[in-house]
Order: sequence, then structure tokens, then C-alpha cells
Amino acid sequence: MKDAPSSKWWGWGDPDKRFDLSLRPYFFSNLKSILKIENAPHLFPPPLEKISVPETKLDHEEILALEKILSPEGIWLSSKERITHAYGKSFRDLMRIRYGIFENIPDAILIPRSEADILRILEWAQQNKIAVIPRGGGTSVVGGVEAVSDPTQRKRVVLDMRALNRVLSISETDMIAEVETGIFGGDLETQLNQKGFSLCHFPESFQYSTLGGWIAARSAGQQSTLYGKIEDMVESLRLITPAGVVDSLPVPAAANGPDWDQLIIGSEGIFGIISRARMKLKILPQEKYYTAYLFNSFEAGMAAVQEIIRQGILPSTVRLSDSTETDFIFSLREISSAFSALLDRNMQKWFAWKGFVPHKRSLLILGLEGTLPKVKYEKAAIKKIFKHYTVFHLGSKVGNGWYRHRFENPYLRDELLGYELIVDTLETATEWGNVEHLHAAVKSAIEAAFRELEIKGVVMAHLSHLYTTGSSLYFIFLAKPHRGRALEEWTVIKRAASDTIVENGGTISHHHGVGIDHRPWIRKELGTLQLQLLRQMKKQFDPAGILNPGKLLPTENET
Amino acid sequence: MKDAPSSKWWGWGDPDKRFDLSLRPYFFSNLKSILKIENAPHLFPPPLEKISVPETKLDHEEILALEKILSPEGIWLSSKERITHAYGKSFRDLMRIRYGIFENIPDAILIPRSEADILRILEWAQQNKIAVIPRGGGTSVVGGVEAVSDPTQRKRVVLDMRALNRVLSISETDMIAEVETGIFGGDLETQLNQKGFSLCHFPESFQYSTLGGWIAARSAGQQSTLYGKIEDMVESLRLITPAGVVDSLPVPAAANGPDWDQLIIGSEGIFGIISRARMKLKILPQEKYYTAYLFNSFEAGMAAVQEIIRQGILPSTVRLSDSTETDFIFSLREISSAFSALLDRNMQKWFAWKGFVPHKRSLLILGLEGTLPKVKYEKAAIKKIFKHYTVFHLGSKVGNGWYRHRFENPYLRDELLGYELIVDTLETATEWGNVEHLHAAVKSAIEAAFRELEIKGVVMAHLSHLYTTGSSLYFIFLAKPHRGRALEEWTVIKRAASDTIVENGGTISHHHGVGIDHRPWIRKELGTLQLQLLRQMKKQFDPAGILNPGKLLPTENET
Repeated sequence: MKDAPSSKWWGWGDPDKRFDLSLRPYFFSNLKSILKIENAPHLFPPPLEKISVPETKLDHEEILALEKILSPEGIWLSSKERITHAYGKSFRDLMRIRYGIFENIPDAILIPRSEADILRILEWAQQNKIAVIPRGGGTSVVGGVEAVSDPTQRKRVVLDMRALNRVLSISETDMIAEVETGIFGGDLETQLNQKGFSLCHFPESFQYSTLGGWIAARSAGQQSTLYGKIEDMVESLRLITPAGVVDSLPVPAAANGPDWDQLIIGSEGIFGIISRARMKLKILPQEKYYTAYLFNSFEAGMAAVQEIIRQGILPSTVRLSDSTETDFIFSLREISSAFSALLDRNMQKWFAWKGFVPHKRSLLILGLEGTLPKVKYEKAAIKKIFKHYTVFHLGSKVGNGWYRHRFENPYLRDELLGYELIVDTLETATEWGNVEHLHAAVKSAIEAAFRELEIKGVVMAHLSHLYTTGSSLYFIFLAKPHRGRALEEWTVIKRAASDTIVENGGTISHHHGVGIDHRPWIRKELGTLQLQLLRQMKKQFDPAGILNPGKLLPTENET
Repeated sequence: MKDAPSSKWWGWGDPDKRFDLSLRPYFFSNLKSILKIENAPHLFPPPLEKISVPETKLDHEEILALEKILSPEGIWLSSKERITHAYGKSFRDLMRIRYGIFENIPDAILIPRSEADILRILEWAQQNKIAVIPRGGGTSVVGGVEAVSDPTQRKRVVLDMRALNRVLSISETDMIAEVETGIFGGDLETQLNQKGFSLCHFPESFQYSTLGGWIAARSAGQQSTLYGKIEDMVESLRLITPAGVVDSLPVPAAANGPDWDQLIIGSEGIFGIISRARMKLKILPQEKYYTAYLFNSFEAGMAAVQEIIRQGILPSTVRLSDSTETDFIFSLREISSAFSALLDRNMQKWFAWKGFVPHKRSLLILGLEGTLPKVKYEKAAIKKIFKHYTVFHLGSKVGNGWYRHRFENPYLRDELLGYELIVDTLETATEWGNVEHLHAAVKSAIEAAFRELEIKGVVMAHLSHLYTTGSSLYFIFLAKPHRGRALEEWTVIKRAASDTIVENGGTISHHHGVGIDHRPWIRKELGTLQLQLLRQMKKQFDPAGILNPGKLLPTENET
């Protein structure tokens, strides 16, 4: 059992770590030329102690009741804790912090130490009509942990799961770990690795997010093509609701009616608190092989990776960048990186001759994991497939470089926010026949929004998380808004992208979840009957409507 | 589009096919010695035309209304059709037929030709409070298609899906077929194979069951270890309910809240009619390798196959028989079969010396499917694992023999029913650490029931459908009841087995479903909150309670 990892309250991850732009001159000059950004950052988060925080709305009696449940150490009322538990890690969250906008500051942070504590908190909150916002690592990028409340519940508490972080058991026979969901990714993985196992779930937020957050939001790791999304890794779970406790049946598969786990996974805290889960484990892979290829077009790369999947080969990672993203990644290289040798003048000439040119070329990061013989067979099979394409093998140095830095993109975002840039990502999934169309449509919609707003911007994308039937599409966009207007202008872009996704055969989210930001599109996503059912289920589990208000369920006027 | 395959109304499958016991003298003498069965069968199904069938309870007006919806050809009222649509293919069903017990004969069979027809039938049935029993191939072995109705709905119609059997589209890019669910397995597979694809779903009922039945009951095929159960093969689906139509989002994965498909899969017709589904396809495997091994004990075989799965290898088929089943299968050999050469006198001596003796030995059928290089790698890896075990490679002749006859066991049941034997199968799943215990507990419970009933019986089992975390356990039991008491005595055995399963960490069904026969154990399986939710969902989709009454949902007195 470890403490929660410390992280920047105003940005991403390790407080001692930043993404040093000065080491990346090509990238910086690229940004300057495209977005006309200034030479130095100007927008910084305010000092924590200078932020004015309203008094908690909990009265003396309520605090005493909570102290009785949790002991005084289990209730945090300081301004510092209340501010740092107000937001998640979305662009909107981090930009509001830099603009000094602090909304929805919770009245208290509660730290349950047992499932009995959770039950008592829910009972108390139900009686007192107080909103409860469950929180793991707080890394939601869609507003999933913001302490909003509806007008009838003016008081709100955050239920911080950090103390419920034990690995209760690891069964080597069943290949199952029973785990309390407040555990952070790094801590869980370390404990599993010691027994020769892995969960094999590595989202970008891995070190700063929790098992409970992953399950509540239907998270996907960077190796999901092989290992599946989090919903594929749950054997059974426990949900604590105001109406009682649900324990799902601990069996590998059943034909006993609907699959209840799949109702609870993705419920984003609106039904109850997922307090423990029995997770399916994998043997630690003997071999991890990461490499990189360059295709002469995104379309060619897409056809090639699709062929891999069709043949029944599941690489751990397939990350295929469109031409814009490929150019950006190339410009991100540090001086004297693995790319340098490849990209010298002569090589570039050869590249151009083969068609690997800027605005056309497409970078593939490919990972294979498993036993040595399995990886060997897969390497040979992929080599055979790639013979039919114009492709350059960049090699393992580039692949391993990506692997080593695979959790670090959010640090770059923090740097760019200092220049008051709009920096955000969004993701969807669609079937193969629609991938190219959706890619083009979303890119166009975002570019149209830039034009409408009269701002400079750039949008890029990659395929990742592949399936036999389709793929996720992950978009990154950067733009230089008008001074002081980053939030409004972000909203216009986000709306344009989301409308385009749901109108063109994509899902509003492949793995970030719904939260607040995607809520307006849920009605279109689900249809009338499913939405009714979702509301009914909410009512059954949480009749007083105290749990994570404002998330997942659309409001009446969101059509 | 093909007609539904013709099949015996009183037994299994092809009317021209039977399992010829005279070709299997070892098996017959084995049965005689264990069960003391008679020399000749004595219990035969009555002639169809001699069965007395009550008049349909539908009045003239109701029939006219239905004719208006479906045209006269779409309503079958003949005694023959009404009898042959009354039951499924469970032991209880087939034994009732032989005993001349005809209960729950439906008042009409309706043949919708479009989804619009289904909507109109449901509207009509809701207005007139008439029970609607959806039916595909009618091969349920748990009473899932029996036309029971509750006391308030004396009239009941069977909604036979046979005419909704088109493959609407096959997308080679998306690897998806959109299919009407009344299609039979053989027809669907033929159409897919013509395009180079397969669904890779082969339950024992394959030729006589439909896609809709598979989805409604959470079916598993004999190759599910590699390809998954039917719930893993659905990309999206349509459910037609009295309250409206649900279309799930056609995307490979999403983080947009609960997974609605997983609510509908396994709903056994109580929410609505699953009218079409978009199914994920596989490329037709280049290589199918089936072979067989003999282990010197069931426990050793279990450890060996578990090791295969732990290493990340997924054989298409793993079917490991306990010693009783192994001896039975060996006794089932025809004169001059593939076994004969192996089992001559000298070989048997060598076998005994190695410990492959009756009451101990354990037969493994192992299948590998995929591209040639993949099967080659898997063969080598498995060979390496098996080096640590005392195991004899029986070879591909035995494996291919199993594969060739893999759909034929139900024909044997028909022969044995003629001797008035109790012949049934039941299946569960549990985690690895509990497999041995559950196997022993269920076996003991069934044997105790034999003793209590003072009848001769035998029970055997195999592992199949393997997962990293556990396995299904499939039991077969044969017993010679007291004359005329097969149904009552079967009930005692079934209850003992089911109680033991749910009290010892198994699920009441891995892939047969709940139907009528497993309904009494659902309350224990689900717990209070899930059961409440199931009832609420039923109420929302089917407010008048007309759909498939008596299935899945426990009655008030079933605790």
C-alpha cells in the first residue's frame, strides 16, 4: 500500500518534471511558423494560496456527523484540498485554472477507509441530499470528476478513494487479482509484477489514474489491441449504491441473462461506487518488441495494419499517424535523437524519391508482446504483409523511444498552455469502411471552426486501438485563440468536432468517457429507449440522485 | 435464403439419420453392464396424427386480425404445427413426447416476413393480452421455447422467425455481416464461406439452431476458446419490443456509458425480438488441425491445458474428458475404427504400464485453427508444454474423427430414450481453483441422487470453453429410472445438480441459458438488486408482460 503519487495541482503529473521545449528547436519553430505563437509563455497558474475560496457550506452538525463516520482525519476542509479536488485534467479544467476561474469547489473531501465507510457516507448524503462526487486519480479529460451539483443539492462532497488501495489477493491459479479500486496504476502494476503477472492496461494517465477510474470510464490502454479495453479485463466487481450492494458472479463466463458487469462498467459514478474488482491477469510478457515504420501515405499504412488484424495477429500497439501528426512527431525530435541519423540530408533525398515526403508520409509505431516464439512468428508474418507496401523500417530505436516516452505527452500540453494555446485531444471509433471518411470529416470540421473563429490552428490524428471491424481515431488539435478567449473558442471547436463525429458514424468516445463534455451528444448516441432505461437504472440505484450529478445523463434541454 | 432444415419433431435433427447402436457393441455391452438396460427399446414417440390437440383458443376475430397482418399463409393453425412448436429439445421435452404428455400447445404459429410484421404482431398481442413466444430453431435444452403462459394470458402464439433469414449484407472491409436472426447456422455459414469468411460459431445444435437463438441464450460454440462466445461476436443489434425499437450503435468499441448489447444478449426473448444483428466475421481459417492426446489422469490433463491458456495460446477446441467419459468414449468406438489399431492387446499393456488405465486415463481433443504459420507456432509451443506430462499422442485420426462427428451426440440420446433412460447434459463454469472441487461436488450430488432414487446411473464430464481464469464443466448423466417415472426422477437429479452448482461457486449455465429449467436458481445467481433491475427492464420493454412468459425471471415463490 502506497500513498497516492504527488502531482501538479494545476497541470499534469510529476511536479518535478516538465517537457523542455528548448531541447526541441524544430518543434518550436514549426509551432511558431504555423500558429504564430509568441517567443515566451505568458499565462501561468496562480499561486494556490492566493485563490479565494468560499467557506464550506457544510454546517457544524454535518461536519460532526462526518467526523463520526470517518474520524477527523478522514475529512479534508482546507482550501488547498478543496481547490485541488475541484477539477480534473481536461483542457477546460487547466485553462480555467490559468485564467483564475474556480467554479464548483467542493465543500469537503472525504477519505473512506473501508467499504463500510462508503456505505455510511452514502446513507448520510442521501438523508441530507448532498451530492457525492466519486474520485480516483482525478485525471478525467471530459469533466468526469468536476464537483458540479444540481440546483437542489447546493452542498457537495468529493469521495476520494485513495485510501482504498489494497491488493486483497492475487490468485496464481485463477490468474485473478482482487483489488480495491482506489489503487493507482503504478502501484497495482508493481505488486502484480512481483508475482510474475501484469494487468497489461497502460493508458497515458497510467501513473496518475486508478483502477476505479478506468472501470468507471471504460478506459483503454495503449496496448489494448492485444489485451482489450478495461471492460475485457474485469472478471467480477462490487458496486456500492445508496440502494444496496451489487456483487457480480465470479465466473469466467455465463448464460444467466444479461451481463451485469457491462452495465456497471462505464457508469461513471452515477449508479454507485465501484469499490473492488476481480481483475483478469496476464503472465508478464517474456518479450516486448517495439519498432517503427514509415509508409508513403496514411491510406497505405491503414491498409497494411488492417491486413495484420484480419490475419488474426494482435499487436500490442498499433499507432499509425496521419501525415500532419507524422510531420509533428518528426519535428519533436531532440537534437541528436534516434531520428537524427535517419534524417540527414542524403537519407532525406532517398526518402523523397520513395515518396516519404512531408504532408504525405505516415509513421507507424508497432509493438508485439508475448512469449519469444509468438513474437517471432508475428514478426515474420508482418514482414510478409509489408512486402506489398512501400514502407521503410525505421527500426527499434524509434519504437523503443516511443515506448520510453509513451506517458509524456501531457507534460507538453502544460508547456503549450503557458502560451495560451488551445491544446486538446478527442477520440472516437468507427468501422473500417468509415475510418477515412470520419478522419477527413472531423479534420475538416475542426479546420472550419478555426476559420470561423479566425484563429490559426492545426489538427492531426492517429489510429490506435484496432479491432477486426474498425479502429479508434485519436485527434489532437492546437490553436492560438484570441487573447483571453481560449475557453469560448475551444467550446466552438469541440462542438463542431463532436457534432461531426455523431453525425458521421463515430461514437462520441472510445475511451475517455462522457463526463460533462460529451453529455450533450449522449441522447443522439443512445436513442430514446436506452436513455429511458439509463434514467430508470439511475433511479433504482440512486433514488435521491446524489451521485456524481451532471455526468453521463443528458439534461432535459440537451437534445 | 433457404427453407428451415427439416428435423424430427419428436427427437433430434435429420429425420433420415439415427445413431446405430448395433455398430457399437462395446458401448452397448458397457451400458448393459452398468445400467442393466433391456435388450431392445420399448418407448417410442406416438404417431403425430394420433395426438389429441385442443382447439385453438384464438377466436374468429383474432384470427382475422392476424390474417390481416400476416396474410393467411403467415398463420399456422394445424394440429401438426401446433404440436411441433410446443416444445424444445430438452430431455424433459422429448421424454414428455414419448410418454404422450402434451402440455402448453400454442394456439397458433405466426410467421412474420418483415420487422414491420413483428411490430404489428407485438402491438396486436399487447392489446389483446396474448402471450408471444419467440422461436428460432427450437433446440433449447432448458425449456426456453416452451409455450407456457401465466394464468392471466390463456392464449399464446409462437412467433417463428424462420422467414426472417436473409443475410442483408457482408462487408469485406468491415468484416461484418448484417443478418436477419431467423437464419439457421448452416445457411449462414455457407453464405459467409462463399465470401471467404466464417462466423466460427459451432454449437452442437449448429445445423438446427438460429442466430437469434444463439444471441438470446448466450450460446457458445465448440471453438469458443479461440473465437469467443456469441456475445463476443456481436457488433450491434436491433431489438423490437412492445415499447419500441432499440438499435445499438454500430462501432467496434465505445466509452459512452453501459454496454447495451450485453443487456440484450441473453435476454431470452423476455424484452423483445432480436430481429437483426451485425456479426463480426473471421477470415476462413487456412488450417484446421485436430488431434487427440491421452493423459494418465484428468488432473494432469487439466494442468496441461491450463498451461496452454496461461501462455496466451488459444486453441480452437480444448475438450478434456474425465476418466468416466474417457472410458465411455473408448467404448463408443465402432468395430474397426481409428482406435482399434491403438487398442490391441500389446498396446494396452504398454498403456497400462504408463498409467493410461480405465478409471484413470483422460482424453484430450485439441484443435488449432488459423494461418499455417500460426498453427505451426502453436503446435511447437504445445509440444514443449506437454513434455512435462505423461501423455500419449493419439494423433489426428482420432482428432479428426471427433471433428467429423462433433454434431452427432444428440442422435445417440434419441436411441437411449427408446430404452426409457434418463439422458441429459448440464453445464456450468467456474474459476480454475474451483474446477476440481466443483467437478467432484456435482458428480457426487448426482450419484447421491441415483442412490436416493435407488436407480442405476452414471455421470461423466469434460472441460471445454477455456478462459485464462477458468473453464466450463460439461456433465452428461445416464440413468435407468423406474418404469414410467423418468420425468420425476430426472427432476430430483437436476435439482441436486443445480443446487450443488450454485452453492459451490459455479454459474447455473455457461451456454445453455436459463429458460424454465434453470429459473429457480436465478434469484441466488443474481441477488436482490440485479433481480429488481431485471424486472424493471422487463416492465419498460414489455409493460403488458406478453413476451416469453415463464422464462428467465423467477416466479414469486422461487427463492
